[in-house]
Amino acid sequence: MSRNRQLKLGAMLHGVGSSTSAWRHPDAIADASVNFELYKKWVQKAEAGKLDLVFIADGLYINEKSIPHFLNRFEPISILSALASVSRHIGLVGTLSTSYSEPFTVARQFGSLDVISGGRAGWNIVTSPLEGSALNYGKKEHPDHDLRYRIATEFLEVTRGLWDSWEDDAFVRNKASGVFFEPSKMHTLNHQGEFFSVKGPLNIARSKQGHPVIFQAGSSEVGKNYAAKEADAIFTGHEKLEEAVGFYQDVKSRASSFGRNPDHVLIFPGISPIIGSTEEEAERKYQKAASLVSAEDALVYLGRYFEHHDFSQYELDAPFPDLGNLGKNSFQSTTDRIKQHAKENGLTLRQAALQAATPRSNFIGTPEQVAGRIQRWFEAGGADGFMIGSAVPNALEQFIDHVVPILQERGLFRTEYESETLRGNLGLPIPRNRYSKDDELVGKS
Amino acid sequence: MSRNRQLKLGAMLHGVGSSTSAWRHPDAIADASVNFELYKKWVQKAEAGKLDLVFIADGLYINEKSIPHFLNRFEPISILSALASVSRHIGLVGTLSTSYSEPFTVARQFGSLDVISGGRAGWNIVTSPLEGSALNYGKKEHPDHDLRYRIATEFLEVTRGLWDSWEDDAFVRNKASGVFFEPSKMHTLNHQGEFFSVKGPLNIARSKQGHPVIFQAGSSEVGKNYAAKEADAIFTGHEKLEEAVGFYQDVKSRASSFGRNPDHVLIFPGISPIIGSTEEEAERKYQKAASLVSAEDALVYLGRYFEHHDFSQYELDAPFPDLGNLGKNSFQSTTDRIKQHAKENGLTLRQAALQAATPRSNFIGTPEQVAGRIQRWFEAGGADGFMIGSAVPNALEQFIDHVVPILQERGLFRTEYESETLRGNLGLPIPRNRYSKDDELVGKS
Repeated sequence: MSRNRQLKLGAMLHGVGSSTSAWRHPDAIADASVNFELYKKWVQKAEAGKLDLVFIADGLYINEKSIPHFLNRFEPISILSALASVSRHIGLVGTLSTSYSEPFTVARQFGSLDVISGGRAGWNIVTSPLEGSALNYGKKEHPDHDLRYRIATEFLEVTRGLWDSWEDDAFVRNKASGVFFEPSKMHTLNHQGEFFSVKGPLNIARSKQGHPVIFQAGSSEVGKNYAAKEADAIFTGHEKLEEAVGFYQDVKSRASSFGRNPDHVLIFPGISPIIGSTEEEAERKYQKAASLVSAEDALVYLGRYFEHHDFSQYELDAPFPDLGNLGKNSFQSTTDRIKQHAKENGLTLRQAALQAATPRSNFIGTPEQVAGRIQRWFEAGGADGFMIGSAVPNALEQFIDHVVPILQERGLFRTEYESETLRGNLGLPIPRNRYSKDDELVGKS
Repeated sequence: MSRNRQLKLGAMLHGVGSSTSAWRHPDAIADASVNFELYKKWVQKAEAGKLDLVFIADGLYINEKSIPHFLNRFEPISILSALASVSRHIGLVGTLSTSYSEPFTVARQFGSLDVISGGRAGWNIVTSPLEGSALNYGKKEHPDHDLRYRIATEFLEVTRGLWDSWEDDAFVRNKASGVFFEPSKMHTLNHQGEFFSVKGPLNIARSKQGHPVIFQAGSSEVGKNYAAKEADAIFTGHEKLEEAVGFYQDVKSRASSFGRNPDHVLIFPGISPIIGSTEEEAERKYQKAASLVSAEDALVYLGRYFEHHDFSQYELDAPFPDLGNLGKNSFQSTTDRIKQHAKENGLTLRQAALQAATPRSNFIGTPEQVAGRIQRWFEAGGADGFMIGSAVPNALEQFIDHVVPILQERGLFRTEYESETLRGNLGLPIPRNRYSKDDELVGKS
């Protein structure tokens, strides 16, 4: 770690919220998930705060029990592209599943977004935890967890190969000679693998940052190895500093063992700060948000992580039920954590459900308290940066207005963008084109 | 036809051009196909000219013989979405293939673009004429022409069903009662067909225009029936007025026979006007553009329509060769026309190739001449509107600056947008939601 190591910050643009009842808050904008003007305002606010990136999550299956944000929301490629042309510096990162898409299309769409935005695109690779996704894509069954990761590995290999179809100096465009491109710098992938067969070349060349930045969020053993081997940045969901430090060290050391520079695998815990001018005000904001959730809604929310399990069959105030292996093939690490947390703390079903539906952030308090906790996590080696979620209305705005300036004053966060590209701002190298023979082309963005 | 019937106009945004050597013109911007600032300028110019729509073509396969624009260009969903947020009125139409994509993803991406843009999206359905596309999508062989249309028919049926997942008043978002949506107005498609099995519902609701506008360009028998039955608008490529009138009458009468109002199937011949302050100046512009194409390039260009056939094996100045059925499974109507044109006019291979590579537009001359010809085609029943292509640099700008004002003076073209949506501007009705029981919801945008 260099002395000048600085925090990286991203903002989750989560429409009406990732919790089941956030939309009912008096200050919530209830159509936020399909309100483009609001997304535009948010990305411009995040850019004014010099944040590294905005992030769009995704999912491929809904039913009548899905939370409001999931029912009706923007699709990632389209919303990120629309945001690209109303922003100039900030990174644009979105989720796209390797289980229900084609590498040629994904490589093109992220490649095109990357060129349109001038090198600001990022792809969060997911393998689609929701079993129902198969039903929207003509598949008999959802592939199991490990198979999904094998597909994802080959998928990314193909995508990266397609992104390298054209060397950076391939397009000479010499009007006098009539040479538009140098044929020796166009490369046909000819991939034939276990899951995909893709010829290439791709019909769009690399952006200024080479490849879109690769994000990943798996926390299972398979997921951690995948992330440590392949990802530029990793999202995590740890709530305790010691767990975060353990995960950080684990993944960085896995990255080293794969021959990678661990500084090139950035760890981003997701946090949802709740900020008040006093501790009491912040606590009141949390209690207000928590009070919006009924026990019934909380059970439905909990069920979503457990393959839409019907929790209403259990006694609400009895101990959290024994669920066996339920949840193993969907959100594996999240369901393990919920089970373990309930067991360790002797929670009832009602308590576990309400805590899952409205987790009490550790990042709650005055701006100084929140900034202090961020600094502590960062300096203790629990994070390279944070993904900022919004558990209460206007949380992102308050974070940018009140916490970011403190982080800047302490020299922990930038006051100006360092680079034109997302890789440049994150301090990540430009991936070398696999076909390039010219060492001088490899550099920093 | 009402007395106030007005022309519709669209602009092809075709980067560095759809011809093989357009980029070599001294005034051409050689990186136009991946130059976002230029696309932004074009869409804003087209909107200043009150045009109905801009159009992005597409393809899923390239090789070293592809024309420059095809090698390295924006992908339609991403570029249209980026253009959505820097425009306010103009329609945003793009090509997407039903042969190599999934209905759930296509419905989502066009649905999301439609909501982001406030009801300005359009989808040009193609079945992918290029055989090589199969190789980029893990398919052994490209489906044949008729099979592709059967797939396209079911694909659109599924997509439309998904678009109707939510009735327009489904999202009540009542904070007091906690009811986010009305369950009886959420609909699960449960489609099980020959080619697709898609459960639904879609996770984005309809835009202000109901469904994106459906464009189609097939001119074969199967293609014409498909378009007459399914499309809101049809692109054609006729160069002679009498052919255009014949096609127009044919398709409108097919539409009637399918029980449709023929006014709701708009016919758009594609034209590439070349405008000069005098006839001579316009002719000089055409000759300059034609002079950029070598016979060698023209043969490669011609070959692209005929399954990448190698025309260099024939004598350049001998009669156009007999090609048998070559081209039947790719660009069927285009290749038929090229063969017929060569035969009727006794062309050599060189002549046929050069004419295919740089067709001499009938819409060439002074602004008055071009406006006059447009008026003649429109009033003779050969067109409801035109798609404006650019055979020479700055052709779109010149058309908007010099021809559009004449059409406006003659009362043939709008001076202000009539509607907020693309359907509204095109005079097309909002498709009724298949599940809606409330007749009052059906109306004009």
